[in-house]
Amino acid sequence: MNKKINDIDFAKSEGLVPVIVQDVHSREVLTLAYVNKESLELTQKTGNSWFWSRSRNKLWMKGEESGNIQKVKEILVDCDSDAIIYLVEPSGPACHTGEKVCFHNILEK
Amino acid sequence: MNKKINDIDFAKSEGLVPVIVQDVHSREVLTLAYVNKESLELTQKTGNSWFWSRSRNKLWMKGEESGNIQKVKEILVDCDSDAIIYLVEPSGPACHTGEKVCFHNILEK
Repeated sequence: MNKKINDIDFAKSEGLVPVIVQDVHSREVLTLAYVNKESLELTQKTGNSWFWSRSRNKLWMKGEESGNIQKVKEILVDCDSDAIIYLVEPSGPACHTGEKVCFHNILEK
Repeated sequence: MNKKINDIDFAKSEGLVPVIVQDVHSREVLTLAYVNKESLELTQKTGNSWFWSRSRNKLWMKGEESGNIQKVKEILVDCDSDAIIYLVEPSGPACHTGEKVCFHNILEK
């Protein structure tokens, strides 16, 4: 089924929805971040991945400082419209630590 | 790097952390859900995927009603310890709609 931006349930979590950033080719999960409506609109409009930063309280484009932008090839929405996947082609590491992906730690018992 | 359960930043979002459920073999993203500390401990203890349901306000094990349990093969933690991946072997569809994955909708412009 196809959905539109107005179908997304931004109200459930105070205007923000989690977005899973996944490599469109390798299917690795790169990052988990958040979008508000405006950042999702910017992503659709520009083709680059935009988010809402909860720590800095502002819109941000991945790569705006590092240059490691992500081209968004497709956006998927889950069954209850409160979570999103960006399928991306990254142009560099996803993590601010320089690691390829943010999920580089194993949880031990 | 390895992390322990006490490293997880549950305080950031009122005791809950988002968890991406990903097929360990196909790398498909099945679901996005949430864990509190207790459900993460149950996951580590039992090897099945446990979560916290925000809508029902209770602990739940995937498959407790449908039988479609998920065996958790590894748990990954992101760089700032506020998001988790369960790498799972599913025994049936992940979505309550009967679809294999919850992310079965494409966002149109």
